[in-house]
Amino acid sequence: MKLIGLADAQGAITVADRVTDSEALVLGGLAEFWEDPAGHIERAGRAEGERVRVADFAVVPPVLPDARVICIGLNYRKHHAEGSYSGEAFPEYPTLFARWTRSLTVAGTPVPVPSNEAGLDWEGEVAAFVGTDLVDADPDEALAAVVGYAAFNDITSRRAQKLSSQWILGKNGDLSGPLGPLVPADEVGDLRDGLRVVTRVNGEIVQDGNTRDLVYDVGNTLSLISHTLTLRAGDVLATGTPEGVGYSRTPPWLLQPGDEVSVEAERLGVLANPITDSAARTRG
Amino acid sequence: MKLIGLADAQGAITVADRVTDSEALVLGGLAEFWEDPAGHIERAGRAEGERVRVADFAVVPPVLPDARVICIGLNYRKHHAEGSYSGEAFPEYPTLFARWTRSLTVAGTPVPVPSNEAGLDWEGEVAAFVGTDLVDADPDEALAAVVGYAAFNDITSRRAQKLSSQWILGKNGDLSGPLGPLVPADEVGDLRDGLRVVTRVNGEIVQDGNTRDLVYDVGNTLSLISHTLTLRAGDVLATGTPEGVGYSRTPPWLLQPGDEVSVEAERLGVLANPITDSAARTRG
Repeated sequence: MKLIGLADAQGAITVADRVTDSEALVLGGLAEFWEDPAGHIERAGRAEGERVRVADFAVVPPVLPDARVICIGLNYRKHHAEGSYSGEAFPEYPTLFARWTRSLTVAGTPVPVPSNEAGLDWEGEVAAFVGTDLVDADPDEALAAVVGYAAFNDITSRRAQKLSSQWILGKNGDLSGPLGPLVPADEVGDLRDGLRVVTRVNGEIVQDGNTRDLVYDVGNTLSLISHTLTLRAGDVLATGTPEGVGYSRTPPWLLQPGDEVSVEAERLGVLANPITDSAARTRG
Repeated sequence: MKLIGLADAQGAITVADRVTDSEALVLGGLAEFWEDPAGHIERAGRAEGERVRVADFAVVPPVLPDARVICIGLNYRKHHAEGSYSGEAFPEYPTLFARWTRSLTVAGTPVPVPSNEAGLDWEGEVAAFVGTDLVDADPDEALAAVVGYAAFNDITSRRAQKLSSQWILGKNGDLSGPLGPLVPADEVGDLRDGLRVVTRVNGEIVQDGNTRDLVYDVGNTLSLISHTLTLRAGDVLATGTPEGVGYSRTPPWLLQPGDEVSVEAERLGVLANPITDSAARTRG
């Protein structure tokens, strides 16, 4: 099952199961879906619902406008060791930073390089979708609340990221967060058991990690967050990228207009996007 | 003019000018307002529109669900000097961090202290509302795009904020971002000319700053941001708090359940909120 958002000409979004490349089974409106995601996934399993042509809609992430996209930085030891923080001890708590949903997009969308960046950096990873509200949850309760996972590319404007101590400017570039379809949790299993995550640039493997190496797992991280803010159904946790990013290489390697970057995560599929120039910011 | 959001029983939000404590003039739906905020403000100046009783609605921030609430940390030299970053040079660029709109609330709402915090810290400041899209804007163009300002209290969970290098967990607690009504820019003038901002706890002045001391002004900061991400009408820039926060005092002083905190900003009014205990997170 691969759940996507379908936007009609008026911008109204429904959530649908993409049963083939060209066809999808409609589950419900976006807000309605997130009121009971587990129930909608169960009904999708029975193939109940109207079938529509994907080409009649714009494919969008199945994400509420006010969902929080919470990202973990530095969650693989070898990624910590390759980057700017390598001189410091591995962080005692997950390093959480924020994306706004306006930075999200889907496979196929060209991602523009801002005019003041030398290129963009890739960060292939896996994201988890929260399915029920969580307040002061323990790790088991928090993990049980996850309804699905998706491949994610946390494409980064490194110059903007490093302007100050806080990273969010470089993490929220236009169309910089391609997010794959939501695959239900019971088709994916536990990330601690290991999903391979491979990032490719123009077909060449640049990252080859496995979620079994995550330092901070999904249950513990969501539990921690839920003690400060109430997690809501539809919130997204991006679990962090393994080693192999471009900026810390010698020489640095950044994505340029004309490149294609893809993230392939086991059981979650392939998420591929072309890179384009900054003029796409005003065109798009 | 004081523009507020009014939510009806179904959750539909309109933007209205609060002409008296009890009465408001309806300007339009939330999305409609942000398609042409300057036009709506002009019509409000002619007092065109339906009058409604405020008490028939819930007052909410006039903010789109997917707006970005971009906050500047360390924007007053004396605040930089009092905090954890005092041993470092003043940052070369604005230190930008993120709030999600789900953390926002309005005057009067009780703000809960999370169960794992010793209290909450105040940060009185002024926020600016972006009124038109901005891509690669220069500072003058960016400043001209600001349609209004509001008092803001960037209430902080200091323990959560300091768990890692990135601050966002402690900056997004439930109901931790009281935001006052939007006052049109032409009633406010230029923050560089100086607005006094006073924060009080139970009536005692704890911060007494002035926006003329802002290091990074609104135009330059929005210009910087717009070179990485396209600012949209409705995005919010919180300009940072002056000196006098609680955690860096000897001994530290944090807000406790039963306290009242208020932010009074010249020309923007008073924004007062009671503090409550963490049980309000599940009640609310």
